[in-house]
Amino acid sequence: MTTVVLLGFGNVGQHLYKAFSASEKVKVVQIYNRNFIETLQIPQCQDTSKLVEAHVYIIAVPDQAIGNLSAVLPFNGRFVVHTSGGVRMDVLSENNKRGVFYPLQTFSKDTKVDFSSIPICIEAEQKTDLALLKTIGSAVSEKVVEISSEEREKLHVAAVFVNNFSNHLYQIAETITKKNGLDFDILKPLITETARKVQRLPPAQAQTGPAKRNDKKTIEKHLKLLKDSEYGELYEKLTESIKNSG
Amino acid sequence: MTTVVLLGFGNVGQHLYKAFSASEKVKVVQIYNRNFIETLQIPQCQDTSKLVEAHVYIIAVPDQAIGNLSAVLPFNGRFVVHTSGGVRMDVLSENNKRGVFYPLQTFSKDTKVDFSSIPICIEAEQKTDLALLKTIGSAVSEKVVEISSEEREKLHVAAVFVNNFSNHLYQIAETITKKNGLDFDILKPLITETARKVQRLPPAQAQTGPAKRNDKKTIEKHLKLLKDSEYGELYEKLTESIKNSG
Repeated sequence: MTTVVLLGFGNVGQHLYKAFSASEKVKVVQIYNRNFIETLQIPQCQDTSKLVEAHVYIIAVPDQAIGNLSAVLPFNGRFVVHTSGGVRMDVLSENNKRGVFYPLQTFSKDTKVDFSSIPICIEAEQKTDLALLKTIGSAVSEKVVEISSEEREKLHVAAVFVNNFSNHLYQIAETITKKNGLDFDILKPLITETARKVQRLPPAQAQTGPAKRNDKKTIEKHLKLLKDSEYGELYEKLTESIKNSG
Repeated sequence: MTTVVLLGFGNVGQHLYKAFSASEKVKVVQIYNRNFIETLQIPQCQDTSKLVEAHVYIIAVPDQAIGNLSAVLPFNGRFVVHTSGGVRMDVLSENNKRGVFYPLQTFSKDTKVDFSSIPICIEAEQKTDLALLKTIGSAVSEKVVEISSEEREKLHVAAVFVNNFSNHLYQIAETITKKNGLDFDILKPLITETARKVQRLPPAQAQTGPAKRNDKKTIEKHLKLLKDSEYGELYEKLTESIKNSG
């Protein structure tokens, strides 16, 4: 049984806790969190001096707090990892052995996720530690991949495009529908199908629409409709980009 | 039983044919198509002069061909509709009664879609014709909505954002991963979850990422990583747009 101390109990921490608790190979022995969490049945602490021993310390706090928290840990030579896509491994303090355990997914507090399908990107300074991350990763997910800090940075950019930027396009569509008295719900099956299609087809092959077929008349009509909105320029840039990648 | 003649047998035509054939209330009595389709068991014609009688003639050809095809139909006063999101109803010839039967979805030849969840946007000049479209729409889908030509134009712009543009973002992510020797598959669960989240949460509430939290350090790092690619400007514009909508 691999023992884990979780540091931080936000979205990622909570989802990791649930996933580990459901596995038979990983035991969360303690949770470190600023506030005491009433609903938890396992040992907690609010003070780093009270941290117990474990095979791995998983830091799941906001990006900008990772370095500082790792630096104030009151021990040396133990295995400490963070869970962020956007932070290099060497942001962690050198006092301990370092690694990364990054579940490539978007988490919300009130949304259940099937952890088994979430790719876990792992990295570690030492081979034995990497093996340990592979073990705990495999305990909760079917896909564990070794990714370096350099690769993860690029992967994170790509993730911003498919997640943050796609979601923003949904928001733009919602704004357009609402503004015109239309129900955004009517677009939801299209959103689902667009994401589903690309699971099987390469995106270039799945691409359709006025930009792809260079339908200038429709593009002009759309730009005219967007004239007084803040989205005209974005429509133009995205249309251009589709044309260039044809 | 409502009888239908389908004009055109591309993606939309084929999916409509399958959906109608599975229903008990609509019968496709003939298919008009430029080429004879070997695999079809129902009457076909390649010549508009051979068209039989039906309650409704559904034109499912490329946008720019709709007007011309409707103008050469060798009859008057019958009910003719098109299936396009981007074309106004009055593009159809005045010789016949006009309408629109627009399934708001993206269709591919080799992808099965669950028609029952696809919203059908209907429009007609006459009330009795609208009722007829409601009948055949309800026979294949759970969601039939009356949408005017003006509304449909705006809905189509919104659809371009969630479908064509989102798909292009997937393609950009694929390019970034490939270029860096990473597997695009690793992003697919994130794509699925991003689309899934917004079925339940308003997009603004689902928004996360560096732009949303105004994480300048990460945004700068990403722009640096994209410096030599054609996607830097798009990253910047989308980031700006997220900030402005906060």
